[in-house]
Amino acid sequence: MTADEFKAAFRHHPGGVSLITASGPGGPVALTATSVASVSAEPPLLVFSVSTSSSSHAALTAAETVVVHLLDSSNRDLARLGATSGIDRFADRTRWAALPTGEPVFHGTRWLRARVASRFDAGTATLVVAEALESDVSREAGDGLIYVDRTWHRIGEHSRLD
Amino acid sequence: MTADEFKAAFRHHPGGVSLITASGPGGPVALTATSVASVSAEPPLLVFSVSTSSSSHAALTAAETVVVHLLDSSNRDLARLGATSGIDRFADRTRWAALPTGEPVFHGTRWLRARVASRFDAGTATLVVAEALESDVSREAGDGLIYVDRTWHRIGEHSRLD
Repeated sequence: MTADEFKAAFRHHPGGVSLITASGPGGPVALTATSVASVSAEPPLLVFSVSTSSSSHAALTAAETVVVHLLDSSNRDLARLGATSGIDRFADRTRWAALPTGEPVFHGTRWLRARVASRFDAGTATLVVAEALESDVSREAGDGLIYVDRTWHRIGEHSRLD
Repeated sequence: MTADEFKAAFRHHPGGVSLITASGPGGPVALTATSVASVSAEPPLLVFSVSTSSSSHAALTAAETVVVHLLDSSNRDLARLGATSGIDRFADRTRWAALPTGEPVFHGTRWLRARVASRFDAGTATLVVAEALESDVSREAGDGLIYVDRTWHRIGEHSRLD
Protein backbone atom coordinates (compact mmCIF):
# COMPACT_ATOMS: atom_id res chain seq x y z
CA MET A 1 0.00 0.00 0.00
CA THR A 2 1.49 3.34 -1.03
CA ALA A 3 1.80 6.41 1.16
CA ASP A 4 -0.64 8.27 -1.11
CA GLU A 5 -3.26 5.52 -0.86
CA PHE A 6 -2.88 5.48 2.91
CA LYS A 7 -3.22 9.24 3.21
CA ALA A 8 -6.29 9.21 0.94
CA ALA A 9 -7.94 6.57 3.13
CA PHE A 10 -7.45 8.57 6.32
CA ARG A 11 -8.19 11.98 4.86
CA HIS A 12 -11.93 11.35 5.34
CA HIS A 13 -11.55 9.98 8.88
CA PRO A 14 -12.60 12.78 11.26
CA GLY A 15 -10.80 13.59 14.47
CA GLY A 16 -11.21 15.74 17.56
CA VAL A 17 -8.60 18.47 17.84
CA SER A 18 -6.03 19.09 20.58
CA LEU A 19 -3.20 21.54 21.09
CA ILE A 20 -0.17 19.99 22.78
CA THR A 21 2.37 22.27 24.41
CA ALA A 22 5.61 21.85 26.33
CA SER A 23 8.48 23.89 27.63
CA GLY A 24 11.49 23.09 25.44
CA PRO A 25 15.16 24.03 25.69
CA GLY A 26 14.60 26.70 23.02
CA GLY A 27 11.39 28.02 24.57
CA PRO A 28 7.76 26.89 24.56
CA VAL A 29 6.44 24.71 21.72
CA ALA A 30 2.89 24.01 20.53
CA LEU A 31 1.44 21.56 18.05
CA THR A 32 -2.11 20.89 16.85
CA ALA A 33 -2.93 17.18 16.72
CA THR A 34 -5.91 14.95 15.97
CA SER A 35 -4.20 11.85 17.36
CA VAL A 36 -4.88 12.41 21.08
CA ALA A 37 -6.86 9.55 22.64
CA SER A 38 -7.52 8.42 26.16
CA VAL A 39 -6.10 4.96 26.71
CA SER A 40 -6.62 4.01 30.35
CA ALA A 41 -8.49 5.62 33.24
CA GLU A 42 -6.59 4.07 36.15
CA PRO A 43 -3.81 5.04 35.80
CA PRO A 44 -5.06 7.98 33.66
CA LEU A 45 -3.09 7.57 30.43
CA LEU A 46 -3.42 9.28 27.07
CA VAL A 47 -1.55 8.80 23.80
CA PHE A 48 -0.62 11.05 20.90
CA SER A 49 1.74 10.91 17.94
CA VAL A 50 4.16 13.53 16.65
CA SER A 51 5.56 13.39 13.13
CA THR A 52 9.34 13.66 12.85
CA SER A 53 8.71 16.35 10.21
CA SER A 54 7.11 18.64 12.82
CA SER A 55 9.21 21.55 14.05
CA SER A 56 8.02 20.65 17.57
CA HIS A 57 9.06 16.98 17.34
CA ALA A 58 12.38 17.25 19.17
CA ALA A 59 11.02 19.34 22.04
CA LEU A 60 7.72 17.43 22.43
CA THR A 61 9.34 14.00 22.43
CA ALA A 62 12.11 15.06 24.84
CA ALA A 63 9.78 16.83 27.30
CA GLU A 64 9.15 15.25 30.68
CA THR A 65 5.71 16.87 30.92
CA VAL A 66 3.21 18.22 28.38
CA VAL A 67 -0.08 20.08 28.44
CA VAL A 68 -2.88 18.68 26.27
CA HIS A 69 -5.55 21.28 25.49
CA LEU A 70 -8.81 19.58 24.43
CA LEU A 71 -10.06 22.20 21.98
CA ASP A 72 -13.68 23.05 21.21
CA SER A 73 -15.16 25.12 18.43
CA SER A 74 -14.49 28.38 20.31
CA ASN A 75 -10.77 27.53 20.16
CA ARG A 76 -10.48 27.25 16.39
CA ASP A 77 -7.95 30.08 16.26
CA LEU A 78 -5.69 28.10 18.62
CA ALA A 79 -6.10 25.00 16.46
CA ARG A 80 -4.92 27.04 13.47
CA LEU A 81 -2.08 28.57 15.46
CA GLY A 82 -0.65 25.16 16.27
CA ALA A 83 -1.05 24.00 12.68
CA THR A 84 0.62 26.96 10.97
CA SER A 85 4.30 26.71 10.05
CA GLY A 86 6.86 29.46 10.24
CA ILE A 87 5.20 31.63 12.87
CA ASP A 88 5.97 32.33 16.53
CA ARG A 89 3.06 30.52 18.16
CA PHE A 90 3.71 32.33 21.44
CA ALA A 91 4.10 35.86 20.07
CA ASP A 92 0.85 37.08 21.66
CA ARG A 93 1.67 37.08 25.37
CA THR A 94 -1.92 37.87 26.30
CA ARG A 95 -3.09 34.45 25.12
CA TRP A 96 -1.07 32.16 27.39
CA ALA A 97 0.76 31.87 30.68
CA ALA A 98 3.35 29.50 32.08
CA LEU A 99 2.22 27.18 34.85
CA PRO A 100 4.27 27.19 38.08
CA THR A 101 5.75 23.95 36.69
CA GLY A 102 6.82 25.74 33.49
CA GLU A 103 4.50 24.43 30.78
CA PRO A 104 2.63 26.99 28.66
CA VAL A 105 -1.17 26.97 28.92
CA PHE A 106 -3.43 28.87 26.53
CA HIS A 107 -6.33 30.73 28.12
CA GLY A 108 -9.97 29.85 27.50
CA THR A 109 -9.36 26.15 27.07
CA ARG A 110 -9.92 22.84 28.86
CA TRP A 111 -6.57 21.16 29.49
CA LEU A 112 -4.67 18.39 31.23
CA ARG A 113 -1.04 18.40 32.38
CA ALA A 114 0.62 15.03 31.93
CA ARG A 115 3.95 13.34 32.64
CA VAL A 116 5.44 11.45 29.71
CA ALA A 117 5.49 7.78 30.67
CA SER A 118 6.87 6.19 27.50
CA ARG A 119 7.80 6.88 23.90
CA PHE A 120 7.84 4.54 20.91
CA ASP A 121 9.19 5.12 17.42
CA ALA A 122 6.64 4.25 14.75
CA GLY A 123 7.81 4.87 11.19
CA THR A 124 8.16 8.61 10.64
CA ALA A 125 6.52 9.49 13.96
CA THR A 126 6.92 9.05 17.69
CA LEU A 127 4.10 7.77 19.87
CA VAL A 128 3.98 9.37 23.31
CA VAL A 129 2.07 7.87 26.25
CA ALA A 130 1.55 10.32 29.13
CA GLU A 131 -0.06 10.08 32.56
CA ALA A 132 -2.43 12.91 33.49
CA LEU A 133 -1.40 14.65 36.71
CA GLU A 134 -3.89 17.53 36.93
CA SER A 135 -6.49 19.25 34.80
CA ASP A 136 -8.49 22.40 34.44
CA VAL A 137 -11.74 21.44 32.78
CA SER A 138 -13.81 23.82 34.87
CA ARG A 139 -14.74 25.77 31.76
CA GLU A 140 -17.85 24.18 30.33
CA ALA A 141 -17.20 22.25 27.13
CA GLY A 142 -18.53 24.12 24.12
CA ASP A 143 -19.54 22.62 20.79
CA GLY A 144 -16.97 20.12 19.56
CA LEU A 145 -14.29 20.91 17.00
CA ILE A 146 -13.54 18.36 14.26
CA TYR A 147 -10.92 18.27 11.52
CA VAL A 148 -11.53 16.19 8.41
CA ASP A 149 -10.60 16.43 4.72
CA ARG A 150 -8.72 19.70 5.38
CA THR A 151 -11.79 21.41 6.80
CA TRP A 152 -13.02 22.33 10.27
CA HIS A 153 -16.43 21.31 11.55
CA ARG A 154 -18.48 22.22 14.59
CA ILE A 155 -20.65 19.59 16.26
CA GLY A 156 -23.55 20.28 18.59
CA GLU A 157 -27.30 19.94 18.64
CA HIS A 158 -27.42 20.58 14.88
CA SER A 159 -25.27 17.54 14.13
CA ARG A 160 -26.72 15.11 16.63
CA LEU A 161 -28.20 11.82 15.42
CA ASP A 162 -31.35 10.65 17.24
CA MET B 1 -5.88 12.96 39.15
CA THR B 2 -8.65 10.44 39.69
CA ALA B 3 -10.09 8.06 37.12
CA ASP B 4 -13.43 9.89 37.30
CA GLU B 5 -11.84 13.27 36.66
CA PHE B 6 -9.91 11.85 33.73
CA LYS B 7 -13.01 10.26 32.19
CA ALA B 8 -14.97 13.49 32.65
CA ALA B 9 -12.27 15.46 30.85
CA PHE B 10 -12.28 13.14 27.83
CA ARG B 11 -16.02 12.58 27.68
CA HIS B 12 -16.41 15.82 25.71
CA HIS B 13 -13.51 15.10 23.36
CA PRO B 14 -15.02 13.93 20.05
CA GLY B 15 -13.64 11.11 17.97
CA GLY B 16 -14.10 9.51 14.59
CA VAL B 17 -15.41 5.97 14.76
CA SER B 18 -13.85 2.74 13.52
CA LEU B 19 -14.78 -0.92 13.69
CA ILE B 20 -11.77 -3.21 14.17
CA THR B 21 -12.10 -6.88 13.32
CA ALA B 22 -9.85 -9.92 13.39
CA SER B 23 -10.05 -13.67 13.06
CA GLY B 24 -9.51 -15.12 16.52
CA PRO B 25 -9.04 -18.68 17.76
CA GLY B 26 -12.68 -18.65 18.92
CA GLY B 27 -14.03 -17.11 15.74
CA PRO B 28 -14.21 -13.58 14.37
CA VAL B 29 -14.14 -10.60 16.76
CA ALA B 30 -15.21 -6.97 16.28
CA LEU B 31 -14.79 -3.86 18.39
CA THR B 32 -15.89 -0.26 17.91
CA ALA B 33 -13.13 2.24 18.74
CA THR B 34 -12.55 5.98 18.62
CA SER B 35 -8.80 5.63 19.18
CA VAL B 36 -7.73 4.83 15.62
CA ALA B 37 -5.25 7.35 14.25
CA SER B 38 -2.84 7.39 11.35
CA VAL B 39 0.71 7.70 12.58
CA SER B 40 3.05 7.50 9.61
CA ALA B 41 2.50 7.42 5.85
CA GLU B 42 5.73 5.73 4.81
CA PRO B 43 5.60 3.05 6.10
CA PRO B 44 1.80 3.34 6.40
CA LEU B 45 1.21 2.85 10.13
CA LEU B 46 -1.88 3.32 12.27
CA VAL B 47 -2.44 2.96 16.00
CA PHE B 48 -5.39 1.99 18.18
CA SER B 49 -5.92 0.99 21.79
CA VAL B 50 -7.96 -1.87 23.24
CA SER B 51 -9.07 -1.93 26.86
CA THR B 52 -8.27 -5.11 28.77
CA SER B 53 -11.92 -5.05 29.88
CA SER B 54 -13.09 -5.59 26.28
CA SER B 55 -14.29 -9.09 25.37
CA SER B 56 -12.25 -8.73 22.16
CA HIS B 57 -9.00 -7.79 23.94
CA ALA B 58 -7.34 -11.21 23.89
CA ALA B 59 -8.15 -11.92 20.24
CA LEU B 60 -7.40 -8.41 18.94
CA THR B 61 -4.06 -8.11 20.71
CA ALA B 62 -2.96 -11.62 19.71
CA ALA B 63 -3.98 -11.27 16.05
CA GLU B 64 -1.28 -11.00 13.40
CA THR B 65 -3.55 -9.01 11.11
CA VAL B 66 -6.63 -6.83 11.64
CA VAL B 67 -9.15 -5.00 9.48
CA VAL B 68 -9.87 -1.36 10.39
CA HIS B 69 -13.20 -0.17 9.00
CA LEU B 70 -13.30 3.65 8.85
CA LEU B 71 -17.00 4.17 9.51
CA ASP B 72 -19.18 6.98 8.21
CA SER B 73 -22.65 8.06 9.23
CA SER B 74 -24.27 5.41 7.00
CA ASN B 75 -22.49 2.77 9.11
CA ARG B 76 -23.94 3.78 12.48
CA ASP B 77 -25.56 0.36 12.94
CA LEU B 78 -22.12 -1.26 12.61
CA ALA B 79 -20.70 1.20 15.14
CA ARG B 80 -23.43 0.15 17.58
CA LEU B 81 -22.90 -3.52 16.80
CA GLY B 82 -19.24 -3.35 17.83
CA ALA B 83 -20.10 -1.38 20.96
CA THR B 84 -22.85 -3.66 22.29
CA SER B 85 -21.93 -6.31 24.84
CA GLY B 86 -23.34 -9.80 25.07
CA ILE B 87 -24.41 -10.24 21.46
CA ASP B 88 -23.04 -12.30 18.58
CA ARG B 89 -21.67 -9.52 16.40
CA PHE B 90 -21.41 -11.89 13.44
CA ALA B 91 -24.85 -13.48 13.69
CA ASP B 92 -26.12 -11.85 10.50
CA ARG B 93 -24.12 -13.63 7.81
CA THR B 94 -25.46 -11.31 5.11
CA ARG B 95 -23.53 -8.36 6.54
CA TRP B 96 -19.96 -9.61 6.30
CA ALA B 97 -17.59 -11.97 4.51
CA ALA B 98 -14.18 -13.40 5.27
CA LEU B 99 -11.32 -12.18 3.13
CA PRO B 100 -9.17 -14.85 1.41
CA THR B 101 -6.70 -14.12 4.23
CA GLY B 102 -9.35 -14.91 6.85
CA GLU B 103 -10.25 -11.56 8.41
CA PRO B 104 -13.93 -10.60 8.53
CA VAL B 105 -14.96 -7.52 6.53
CA PHE B 106 -18.35 -5.84 6.88
CA HIS B 107 -20.03 -4.82 3.64
CA GLY B 108 -20.70 -1.19 2.71
CA THR B 109 -17.66 0.19 4.46
CA ARG B 110 -14.26 1.70 3.69
CA TRP B 111 -11.54 -0.46 5.24
CA LEU B 112 -7.85 -1.22 5.51
CA ARG B 113 -6.21 -4.57 6.25
CA ALA B 114 -3.12 -4.20 8.41
CA ARG B 115 -0.37 -6.38 9.89
CA VAL B 116 0.27 -5.83 13.60
CA ALA B 117 3.78 -4.41 13.91
CA SER B 118 4.04 -3.86 17.68
CA ARG B 119 2.04 -3.89 20.90
CA PHE B 120 2.60 -1.92 24.11
CA ASP B 121 0.90 -2.27 27.46
CA ALA B 122 -0.42 1.07 28.74
CA GLY B 123 -2.26 0.84 32.04
CA THR B 124 -5.49 -1.07 31.56
CA ALA B 125 -5.16 -1.10 27.78
CA THR B 126 -2.93 -2.34 24.99
CA LEU B 127 -1.71 -0.06 22.23
CA VAL B 128 -1.44 -1.73 18.85
CA VAL B 129 0.59 -0.32 15.95
CA ALA B 130 -0.24 -1.89 12.58
CA GLU B 131 1.06 -1.49 9.04
CA ALA B 132 -1.56 -1.13 6.32
CA LEU B 133 -1.19 -3.77 3.62
CA GLU B 134 -4.23 -3.16 1.41
CA SER B 135 -7.44 -1.19 1.44
CA ASP B 136 -10.83 -0.94 -0.15
CA VAL B 137 -11.82 2.71 0.01
CA SER B 138 -13.45 2.66 -3.42
CA ARG B 139 -16.81 3.42 -1.85
CA GLU B 140 -17.14 7.18 -1.67
CA ALA B 141 -16.81 8.52 1.87
CA GLY B 142 -20.18 9.63 3.21
CA ASP B 143 -20.83 12.16 5.93
CA GLY B 144 -18.54 11.60 8.89
CA LEU B 145 -19.59 9.76 12.05
CA ILE B 146 -18.53 11.17 15.44
CA TYR B 147 -18.92 9.87 18.98
CA VAL B 148 -18.85 12.27 21.90
CA ASP B 149 -20.50 12.48 25.31
CA ARG B 150 -22.31 9.19 24.70
CA THR B 151 -24.01 10.50 21.56
CA TRP B 152 -23.52 10.04 17.83
CA HIS B 153 -23.11 12.96 15.46
CA ARG B 154 -23.07 13.33 11.69
CA ILE B 155 -20.80 15.88 10.07
CA GLY B 156 -21.16 17.25 6.58
CA GLU B 157 -22.01 20.51 4.85
CA HIS B 158 -24.34 21.44 7.75
CA SER B 159 -21.50 21.31 10.30
CA ARG B 160 -18.77 22.92 8.24
CA LEU B 161 -17.06 26.07 9.54
CA ASP B 162 -16.21 28.68 6.88
